[in-house]
Amino acid sequence: MSENREKYDFTIPTLGLGKVKSPILLSKVFGDTIANYVSDDEKILYHIQVDEDSPGCAYEDYGTIQKAGPREKIYFNPDHVRAGIITCGGLCPGLNDVIRSAVRTLWYRYGVRRITGIKFGYNGLLGAVEDSLMDLNPDVVDDIHRIGGSILGSSRGGGDRTDEIVDAIERLNLNMLFTIGGDGTQKGALAIAEEIERRKLKIAVVGIPKTIDNDLSFIERSFGFETAVVRATESVFAAHQEAHSAINGVGLVKLMGRDSGFIAAHTAMASHDVNFVLIPEVPFDLEGADGLFEQLKKRLERRNHAVIVVAEGAGQEHLAADARTDASGNKVLGDIGLYLKRRIVEHFDSIGYPVNLKYIDPSYIIRSSVAIPTDSLYCSRLGTNAVHAAMAGKTKTLISLLNNHYVHVPIELATRTRNYVDPEGSLWRDVIDSTSMPIQMTNPKK
Amino acid sequence: MSENREKYDFTIPTLGLGKVKSPILLSKVFGDTIANYVSDDEKILYHIQVDEDSPGCAYEDYGTIQKAGPREKIYFNPDHVRAGIITCGGLCPGLNDVIRSAVRTLWYRYGVRRITGIKFGYNGLLGAVEDSLMDLNPDVVDDIHRIGGSILGSSRGGGDRTDEIVDAIERLNLNMLFTIGGDGTQKGALAIAEEIERRKLKIAVVGIPKTIDNDLSFIERSFGFETAVVRATESVFAAHQEAHSAINGVGLVKLMGRDSGFIAAHTAMASHDVNFVLIPEVPFDLEGADGLFEQLKKRLERRNHAVIVVAEGAGQEHLAADARTDASGNKVLGDIGLYLKRRIVEHFDSIGYPVNLKYIDPSYIIRSSVAIPTDSLYCSRLGTNAVHAAMAGKTKTLISLLNNHYVHVPIELATRTRNYVDPEGSLWRDVIDSTSMPIQMTNPKK
Amino acid sequence: MSENREKYDFTIPTLGLGKVKSPILLSKVFGDTIANYVSDDEKILYHIQVDEDSPGCAYEDYGTIQKAGPREKIYFNPDHVRAGIITCGGLCPGLNDVIRSAVRTLWYRYGVRRITGIKFGYNGLLGAVEDSLMDLNPDVVDDIHRIGGSILGSSRGGGDRTDEIVDAIERLNLNMLFTIGGDGTQKGALAIAEEIERRKLKIAVVGIPKTIDNDLSFIERSFGFETAVVRATESVFAAHQEAHSAINGVGLVKLMGRDSGFIAAHTAMASHDVNFVLIPEVPFDLEGADGLFEQLKKRLERRNHAVIVVAEGAGQEHLAADARTDASGNKVLGDIGLYLKRRIVEHFDSIGYPVNLKYIDPSYIIRSSVAIPTDSLYCSRLGTNAVHAAMAGKTKTLISLLNNHYVHVPIELATRTRNYVDPEGSLWRDVIDSTSMPIQMTNPKK
Amino acid sequence: MSENREKYDFTIPTLGLGKVKSPILLSKVFGDTIANYVSDDEKILYHIQVDEDSPGCAYEDYGTIQKAGPREKIYFNPDHVRAGIITCGGLCPGLNDVIRSAVRTLWYRYGVRRITGIKFGYNGLLGAVEDSLMDLNPDVVDDIHRIGGSILGSSRGGGDRTDEIVDAIERLNLNMLFTIGGDGTQKGALAIAEEIERRKLKIAVVGIPKTIDNDLSFIERSFGFETAVVRATESVFAAHQEAHSAINGVGLVKLMGRDSGFIAAHTAMASHDVNFVLIPEVPFDLEGADGLFEQLKKRLERRNHAVIVVAEGAGQEHLAADARTDASGNKVLGDIGLYLKRRIVEHFDSIGYPVNLKYIDPSYIIRSSVAIPTDSLYCSRLGTNAVHAAMAGKTKTLISLLNNHYVHVPIELATRTRNYVDPEGSLWRDVIDSTSMPIQMTNPKK
Repeated sequence: MSENREKYDFTIPTLGLGKVKSPILLSKVFGDTIANYVSDDEKILYHIQVDEDSPGCAYEDYGTIQKAGPREKIYFNPDHVRAGIITCGGLCPGLNDVIRSAVRTLWYRYGVRRITGIKFGYNGLLGAVEDSLMDLNPDVVDDIHRIGGSILGSSRGGGDRTDEIVDAIERLNLNMLFTIGGDGTQKGALAIAEEIERRKLKIAVVGIPKTIDNDLSFIERSFGFETAVVRATESVFAAHQEAHSAINGVGLVKLMGRDSGFIAAHTAMASHDVNFVLIPEVPFDLEGADGLFEQLKKRLERRNHAVIVVAEGAGQEHLAADARTDASGNKVLGDIGLYLKRRIVEHFDSIGYPVNLKYIDPSYIIRSSVAIPTDSLYCSRLGTNAVHAAMAGKTKTLISLLNNHYVHVPIELATRTRNYVDPEGSLWRDVIDSTSMPIQMTNPKK
Repeated sequence: MSENREKYDFTIPTLGLGKVKSPILLSKVFGDTIANYVSDDEKILYHIQVDEDSPGCAYEDYGTIQKAGPREKIYFNPDHVRAGIITCGGLCPGLNDVIRSAVRTLWYRYGVRRITGIKFGYNGLLGAVEDSLMDLNPDVVDDIHRIGGSILGSSRGGGDRTDEIVDAIERLNLNMLFTIGGDGTQKGALAIAEEIERRKLKIAVVGIPKTIDNDLSFIERSFGFETAVVRATESVFAAHQEAHSAINGVGLVKLMGRDSGFIAAHTAMASHDVNFVLIPEVPFDLEGADGLFEQLKKRLERRNHAVIVVAEGAGQEHLAADARTDASGNKVLGDIGLYLKRRIVEHFDSIGYPVNLKYIDPSYIIRSSVAIPTDSLYCSRLGTNAVHAAMAGKTKTLISLLNNHYVHVPIELATRTRNYVDPEGSLWRDVIDSTSMPIQMTNPKK
Repeated sequence: MSENREKYDFTIPTLGLGKVKSPILLSKVFGDTIANYVSDDEKILYHIQVDEDSPGCAYEDYGTIQKAGPREKIYFNPDHVRAGIITCGGLCPGLNDVIRSAVRTLWYRYGVRRITGIKFGYNGLLGAVEDSLMDLNPDVVDDIHRIGGSILGSSRGGGDRTDEIVDAIERLNLNMLFTIGGDGTQKGALAIAEEIERRKLKIAVVGIPKTIDNDLSFIERSFGFETAVVRATESVFAAHQEAHSAINGVGLVKLMGRDSGFIAAHTAMASHDVNFVLIPEVPFDLEGADGLFEQLKKRLERRNHAVIVVAEGAGQEHLAADARTDASGNKVLGDIGLYLKRRIVEHFDSIGYPVNLKYIDPSYIIRSSVAIPTDSLYCSRLGTNAVHAAMAGKTKTLISLLNNHYVHVPIELATRTRNYVDPEGSLWRDVIDSTSMPIQMTNPKK
Repeated sequence: MSENREKYDFTIPTLGLGKVKSPILLSKVFGDTIANYVSDDEKILYHIQVDEDSPGCAYEDYGTIQKAGPREKIYFNPDHVRAGIITCGGLCPGLNDVIRSAVRTLWYRYGVRRITGIKFGYNGLLGAVEDSLMDLNPDVVDDIHRIGGSILGSSRGGGDRTDEIVDAIERLNLNMLFTIGGDGTQKGALAIAEEIERRKLKIAVVGIPKTIDNDLSFIERSFGFETAVVRATESVFAAHQEAHSAINGVGLVKLMGRDSGFIAAHTAMASHDVNFVLIPEVPFDLEGADGLFEQLKKRLERRNHAVIVVAEGAGQEHLAADARTDASGNKVLGDIGLYLKRRIVEHFDSIGYPVNLKYIDPSYIIRSSVAIPTDSLYCSRLGTNAVHAAMAGKTKTLISLLNNHYVHVPIELATRTRNYVDPEGSLWRDVIDSTSMPIQMTNPKK
């Protein structure tokens, strides 16, 4: 397995030197040494794999990543802080947990008292909605981790109207903005931070990356992802029961995963009931000896039932082909789940071997779910570390978990590339081991 | 924060060179290159932290760890394999998931057909129980991940009767033994493997480390741990409701954690309802201005209710003191939960400020729980990689997750030290941030 | 509120007098009296409501219903029994629990050793599937209540091929058939029993009514119904979160309920998040001041979000109208959920007040679900009492819960009419109280 | 089976005639007839069983019970209402659901704007706690059904200080009091209502009976009971897993049930894993051929593991005997769970057949649980009907479900006797059928 050996620049932009004594109190260990603040010099290696090609001593050459955590000297005087929090894009389990944690850390640990929630994403800054501001404090957020969604609401778009957004930020007098959102949101945040810089303002922009698909680079696991997998297994279990109880039963579950198949791959392993996993990274044929139809038939002949999990971004080549054959142009099917449902039923009808297919699309149930406790904990730690970063004057920065450490990653770097399931990597290999999926169908390049 | 800089020897013992072509088929990528086997030379760095003290280029000097996964050449001819699987010690979520995964990988991927489950731990090899063997195959294990416990049963002890165990292994004609268990079990496994070596037998001994407390070294997260945290939060929520609904309500929950407080620390963060976390690594006073009684009183005066989580190994110094004052010797209280319950009630009665304390000990409910899907997935990958290791002739080896990679760790190394919550580390710091626990009570050294 | 005062004939058909001493042992109370067998004379009143119109002393005139339970003298000699069990129609939570309970009662309480499961419904008796028989015993059914679906599989149709089915029953030498299924299944069972009678065979046919919609007459609550409501609330909660987190968010959930709105009504009350409940029994307008569009707009203006639950059989008049206007005939929309989704979005777009509608159809997730424990208990008691009935020689009979007692109901009677939500009754009234649904929309007759 | 044939007086006390037009709007059916108000004359029969002993036409002689629901004419002018709500005694799932429903019905349906929650039970009226009042409105109660416990808090006792309580009620100017609590609470409520009467005040006292044990007479099923059973099955499942995974494993679960074994009986049937059910109504021996020890040994010899469920009130005769033999008086064991744990372990040690016993006491986890949706629905309907009753001027009245109808029951009647599991009835018989418990152990009278 060969690994990307690009050298990355993990330098974290800052608003300036921290000169204010942090008000937070930490455990004092070994007498008078205050030990568990984190220094900017504490880093971890990015590249940690060793193989015959690894140059002896140059791991640092691939980049070292700054650890997150509270700094002993911070940039902002807590009394002067006015923080804004915004959630953008589609729902994802854990949004409220991140909000709650950020608010509590600002309030209890730094003594910040002016915290503003901006409702419905960037649109809330653009005058698109009434009552778009919400005062946040520990009482308001006390129980919000018990419900899904975002108490701030969310919406898509608006992030490209940078000038207007920065105008609004200035009007609101914010000097700290937490952007909870995905790729587009963070690109917007970067543009906002750059405009802030142009205007010579001192406003920290810190992002908490949200991507239920887990497809952001430089973040090991996105928040909400574990919850998504847990919820998704419930739908797979339902599909399995339906398939198992029917004559030639086929359960078909469409899961999230626009560009990468992480949810589908993990769900397949976590549920133990999946026979075929179709993801964007691994193209598949429908027809032919190695195609889905034939392989599915073999499975049905052997076991009478089958379960297929398909990521929403898988098999787009088939949809395109279908659109072409369809000619008129306005009937392009965009939904691989519905497409497979139709094609499978038609195919097996045509060969006189009818199947009993049940199709489940649990997307809204999954993404609006309450975070499971271990995910909630993760959200909590991301939120806390985001506050530490902003108080220390970091900006244009995301909070991330990498090589099992909480770290700072430049937004610019994180939004440059996406994360994909490596068809040659251990995850996909373990999916094959676990599902016993026909090996011909697991090959990304034919 | 200073880090242990000992250099470790991660050399993996093997029975011999792999000369057999692996029967498993993997994705063929880029034409004829078979790419996703793992070579023994693929390793990851153990030490990945960088700070001012780090010598420039010597990360490898701290040890490199071999990646787990299927080898292209394996040691055992699958036709000759007779594998044994054993589960020892207390229950832990995920035992059945590990068994299931090992059986399926042996059967479907390598074609091994002789798999024996040994019932009730090492005692099952010692003639202590009737019907102590159980044939395992994919049908037998098909649905076992839906129930908790271990289908093989489990028991404590017996691991020190090495000679008899190896005699039994010889009688059973096993050439591969998977030991699923904790510290003691793996030490037993090492002794067994050494005796095997002395007898010049070719039997692979591969361990899957089980420790619900998460206190094994060289493993990032033990299987079942996430499930334990999820289940524990349910008891904490119950304690919170009880406390919240009573006059001066105090909820007290005792969680597992004999030597280390990982479950308590994670549960406190995951549940968001905990005010005091008492763990073995951080001693606490009962009396005095910084003691639990006074701090608890302050909390009650402010909010009228409080939740305390205590790890079973916390505060042992108090139990010892109590035993001394008790004199007679036979009434030594060994249970910190019951001890705190009694002391708190007595103290607050004595100061005319009675509390309404509800005590919950959910240990058996937690440890017998079915693994949550994400934990089940993890068990599945550990079991699969354990089989790959044994087939490749590795022995005296554990499967572990380190720095986010599945790796091989020598049993000898893993059982040498335990893993503790670092009171100066980021986990404990985030616990303080999250619980707003009084800072005086978070100090390990007074 | 006026009540149906028809007098029903609850006479239970039997194969003949019970002459065999029951082998089951029950608690002997008060010395030698064996007390807790049930006599055929033990009955309950059907009509229990009293009002000014009730004739003084004639409750028995409305019919009395025989209590279910073990008879001291039974019809069949257990040694001669060969029992068949069949599950038909769509899935429903609890099928396996009923099967399990029937098998265990036959086996452990009566000593019956020949129990045959017929796979895939009536089709399994018609040679439509291979391997359509399955031996049942306590070991086979031991853990089946932990999974959903039916281990026997199920399928629709075939119940009208009475002659062939009775031929098959004769070939299999069954003298007892348990039919677990809905309206159609039980009508089929009745026809089968009548053909059995014509052939002068002594075969008991006892039904356990299955209708997730809860729309069978003479049964208070169908098994699986509670589980369906619990699962449905999860989707409503998701819809609520989605709606609440969006600008003008509308959550639309389609639930089961072809002819009656019990699931929708109960789910609305159980979830506390529903603003509009649309059921078949209460027609509604889309347009006009009292129509859904206008009322929904009012709700959105007031609260910015709304949740609608619609039973699949509601608003069929709109679909028909839509079909007519559509003219061509082949594009008739049959799905009220998708229809409402389209119409609502189009309407609010057309008035320049766009809504953010999320549509959830959780049917397969609900019906394949594992029964919740209280439902499982109910299934268990139905199965047990079905066995008691068949052993006693009852036939053409359903097991039912009425006025809180387990009773026998003639299939002929139970399949004659359906059960509906009474728009003038207490259930619908409590729905209105609970949802604060606009009163104009709750009126069944305009 | 013989039934209690006492004739009961179900006359409902009222404050006076309803003269106020109800402000609530209900569905108008059939033109101008307003049909779904409930008249005081609408009743149901109490006695509905028919057997050879039933006198022909005298069902009404056993009492008829008034149906609950909104009256067309009500006693109180909503503008003048000041309602109080109080929760007393131990926690029970659904308390918040009842509060929420009562508040919403008062507010939205009747327009009542002055609703006061009294904190911590009767003690909150007695000056025992600070800040003992809480304004209630739909916003305050909006999400409280998602948490367990009671937002009003609860406490035991105080209900006998009738004079002081009525003084407080007068000071608060309440004219409507909802008492949510058990036997003692409702007896207190009755005394309060009598004192109110003596003082010639017009204050309605309406109770919602709370008893997690389900042991109140004249109520079919108490709220929270279903949730308790669902939660209890989780502990039984844990006990089963522990027992199943150990050598001679015994799982012992103590459940609530001070005087009656309903939770234990239902949980045994709902969980399918229980072998012995010990309830207060059915005495059992420990020693002897029919005793628990011998029967447990037989089970272990046959299956190697066993699960015992014991209601907290079971086997009190053994505790008393134990206390006697213990002599000193101060070491009386009051806990049947801990007692059985000790005795079983000692016994099997003494006969050289050691068992591996795991003891689980889940009481606090159960009673603080959030109500399951179907239970929540039930709470909601109880709360709504309680408001209808009080608005109509009913007093000294409980809301109950009887023969599947919501009805009014005089407090005086409901608190006179308790409800027990009838060892000759269908529930206990079905427990025996379901658990295959040794028949000798199911006999209440030896």
